[in-house]
Amino acid sequence: MNSYDIIVVGAGAAGLTAAIYSSRRKLSTLVIGKEVGGQAATTLSIENYPGIKSTTGPDLMNQFAKQAERFGTDIVSGEILSISKNDAGFLVRTATDSYQTKAVILAFGSQHRHLGIPGEKEFLNKGVVYCATCDAPFFEGKPVAIVGGGNGALYAATVLLPLASKIYIIHRGETLKAEAWLVDKVKQEPKVEIITKANVKEILGNTFVEKIKIETPEGERELPVEGIFIAIGHIVDSAFLNGLVELDGSGQILVDQFGRTSVAGIFAAGDATTIPYKQMVIAAGEGAKAALSAYDYIQSKTSS
Amino acid sequence: MNSYDIIVVGAGAAGLTAAIYSSRRKLSTLVIGKEVGGQAATTLSIENYPGIKSTTGPDLMNQFAKQAERFGTDIVSGEILSISKNDAGFLVRTATDSYQTKAVILAFGSQHRHLGIPGEKEFLNKGVVYCATCDAPFFEGKPVAIVGGGNGALYAATVLLPLASKIYIIHRGETLKAEAWLVDKVKQEPKVEIITKANVKEILGNTFVEKIKIETPEGERELPVEGIFIAIGHIVDSAFLNGLVELDGSGQILVDQFGRTSVAGIFAAGDATTIPYKQMVIAAGEGAKAALSAYDYIQSKTSS
Repeated sequence: MNSYDIIVVGAGAAGLTAAIYSSRRKLSTLVIGKEVGGQAATTLSIENYPGIKSTTGPDLMNQFAKQAERFGTDIVSGEILSISKNDAGFLVRTATDSYQTKAVILAFGSQHRHLGIPGEKEFLNKGVVYCATCDAPFFEGKPVAIVGGGNGALYAATVLLPLASKIYIIHRGETLKAEAWLVDKVKQEPKVEIITKANVKEILGNTFVEKIKIETPEGERELPVEGIFIAIGHIVDSAFLNGLVELDGSGQILVDQFGRTSVAGIFAAGDATTIPYKQMVIAAGEGAKAALSAYDYIQSKTSS
Repeated sequence: MNSYDIIVVGAGAAGLTAAIYSSRRKLSTLVIGKEVGGQAATTLSIENYPGIKSTTGPDLMNQFAKQAERFGTDIVSGEILSISKNDAGFLVRTATDSYQTKAVILAFGSQHRHLGIPGEKEFLNKGVVYCATCDAPFFEGKPVAIVGGGNGALYAATVLLPLASKIYIIHRGETLKAEAWLVDKVKQEPKVEIITKANVKEILGNTFVEKIKIETPEGERELPVEGIFIAIGHIVDSAFLNGLVELDGSGQILVDQFGRTSVAGIFAAGDATTIPYKQMVIAAGEGAKAALSAYDYIQSKTSS
């Protein structure tokens, strides 16, 4: 069976940064990820990662991966079936292999919830957007739609307010569920049109999004938009952990400021955790913290 | 008087990242720093900033600054004399100007404590090092000295153990002050020589460090080392805050995981705060968090 000092679950910004830091500390490090890059790898244009003027998600994540490998990290593709505690640390199983490790860093990220409608996949990054903080500046002067009625959707609206020429907020419920101050702020803006009890049926265009079709109690309507911000939440797929560490109500892993979970020897970083704001540079910073904490943990164990 | 939405104090990794994020949110942003780059600007070779294989501190920090300016941030050089609360938010004074702002982000970093001996400045980054996490890998197979007897010094020793060929620990006190497990771990290593009641008098070499001169109760001694890791602590120069926000015993600003300080409207990020581990990517991540929190704060104020 293969044995490592540290196994990192997830190959996104948090996991790969953790690997850079732990392998620079001469800890043998294995990254297991479904695919290199995590959520960032689906982003075509990135202009807010400090130090790099403009890049794409796949390019930046490949750069992270190469840097980790250069310092000795092994990266394999695979899905975790189980993680269990044993005398030597933890046993990590995938469909094809078992690995023994002294410490685990959970950095498997989160997925944006999708609408599952025609056009959503086809126009991804061609007008279909899941992160307002990341992508709002690309829609300066353009009409956009936001789908959702919670804090995330209204928050996207405030970010788009100084940028977009027109903002439709499309919510399937009768009333917006976001905090009152957010709703009040957005409602008073002339460029915002809130359409409740409405569902998006289809996203249409040629190369880029040109319009969306929505269904309302008054019938179907077409809205001319160049961007559609889908803000209906995140999914943290932490079911495979099977109660191993403490989670919050949405399945996010509870961590302290050292990236420690409720179990000694298991650390976590990035979008799968309770750390606020889903941003690549934040995930990377948390990955570095988790790796340095894991290093401290291993050092203190081996000397006792 | 000039007025901004956000004033960032400090132009290092944390402050400039905060500025990238706040100016991308269309908040008018001013960065006031003694010099662009902060502590990172003194580092010649950087290989652990994720996404960039190899760079220098000044190059990377200039890149951060250009990115912030591209989104509209103003950057001025100056030292803060005072920050005081008023009805519209905060008044920030430098020697030459006064600025009004809605929110402040404190990101003025920390300085490594120096020995103040001949050779220390001359050989900076040519063998004289203040950060083991950053620079230990450059000393693979080489003899080094560590100055200090606290956790930082012994920690540097554990990082250097798998790398350096020989490690001298030079401490002016009689016994090491680090935690017992760290001391035990390091003491049992044959390649480590601990020299107590000793002071470093001079650092010598040609282009790079070749040896150091130390003074012990038994007389002077020369040690052939290619690196000298000075690990005698950090200084956070937070006196100018004059009690404005809560600090810990070492003068570090207390923050929560949103980068909030004890005062609403004042945020903090990076090495000046209580966040663990002084690393550039961690400071950058914290800067992004502080800016997004400041944005939320300003939004909630203007709508109420």
